[in-house]
Amino acid sequence: MAELGGRRNTTFFAYTLSANREDFYDITAQVRKAVGKSGVSDGAAVVYCPHTTAGITINENADPDVVRDLLFALGKAFPDRPEFRHAEGNSAAHLKASAVGSGATVIVNGGKLVLGTWQGVYFCEFDPPRTRTFYVKVLEG
Amino acid sequence: MAELGGRRNTTFFAYTLSANREDFYDITAQVRKAVGKSGVSDGAAVVYCPHTTAGITINENADPDVVRDLLFALGKAFPDRPEFRHAEGNSAAHLKASAVGSGATVIVNGGKLVLGTWQGVYFCEFDPPRTRTFYVKVLEG
Amino acid sequence: MAELGGRRNTTFFAYTLSANREDFYDITAQVRKAVGKSGVSDGAAVVYCPHTTAGITINENADPDVVRDLLFALGKAFPDRPEFRHAEGNSAAHLKASAVGSGATVIVNGGKLVLGTWQGVYFCEFDPPRTRTFYVKVLEG
Repeated sequence: MAELGGRRNTTFFAYTLSANREDFYDITAQVRKAVGKSGVSDGAAVVYCPHTTAGITINENADPDVVRDLLFALGKAFPDRPEFRHAEGNSAAHLKASAVGSGATVIVNGGKLVLGTWQGVYFCEFDPPRTRTFYVKVLEG
Repeated sequence: MAELGGRRNTTFFAYTLSANREDFYDITAQVRKAVGKSGVSDGAAVVYCPHTTAGITINENADPDVVRDLLFALGKAFPDRPEFRHAEGNSAAHLKASAVGSGATVIVNGGKLVLGTWQGVYFCEFDPPRTRTFYVKVLEG
Repeated sequence: MAELGGRRNTTFFAYTLSANREDFYDITAQVRKAVGKSGVSDGAAVVYCPHTTAGITINENADPDVVRDLLFALGKAFPDRPEFRHAEGNSAAHLKASAVGSGATVIVNGGKLVLGTWQGVYFCEFDPPRTRTFYVKVLEG
């Protein structure tokens, strides 16, 4: 679109994040902003993490103890193991990334992101500290 | 569309479910129905759970023992833990929700949902009893 | 399109795979090829596994020890259990399939699959040996 200096479209957005500790970072506001900027009324927003030791999940946005408990329990279910061979030593982080998944697709209806009352979209950092990127693509249809 | 009393489109559907026990509820029929009603011939169906202690997964639709074994093993991998701090006491359910994921995207081709022979779409209830909602958005393209 | 002998479109692709052992099979090249053939410039690629003891994940494409460690740790988190009742004896494989998920949605921008530098798309075989199929649907929008 001309007003955007030749960008092919306005439905693809990139954001950066300083992920200083292992945590779930609430990115719901950015995803909503992307949907608003896209002008898409009906479709879906694909939220995507291009890193292999981080992921995207949707979970409770109210009590911070939920995220704390999730991080604790992920560490118990997917601990570092002496048998791991990957030289970087972050295989547990790679596994947590595959367990939560590299992306989430959220419905857009009437120009709004369709999230449940208690849902937030989270960027999950499992191998801090890192400067991270995530993408939002708003599909129309 | 005018014939639908002003609804913006017919590709977004909501369903409710009485989830009385921890279980995987087969919602394949509703997803197929949504695809049929949408009139979309080619695209994808986004099946979405707006709750944080429930999720969506795709797994075997034939032997009910598969679902029974999955529920048992999820309880073993992600048990309730004395270290959990979330006051509602359902952190394990929140974790299972993030492990299976809040949604699934299934391809639509020739007007049909493209599922494997043994695949069903399941609503996974991890914190019963609840009256739940799930959404189906059919994307065209 | 007429040149394709009456196929409804060229955005839906099926591939087969000989999955002789429990492993993650790198299918990134096929997904890229599907995106190229589709001619879709902006949208998303839905990569889908129609089997219930296999799945799709996105993880590191550089050091093969990462995949080796992931397989090892998935076996530890989701082991075979004496309490399982499913007669086929592959409940652990069904669980791993739900843990990694049956599909992944990757953004397409400017005709390219938007993957991170170290990301590859993997078909995850948990119940070998099998001849498997996976689908790629390229959504435009």
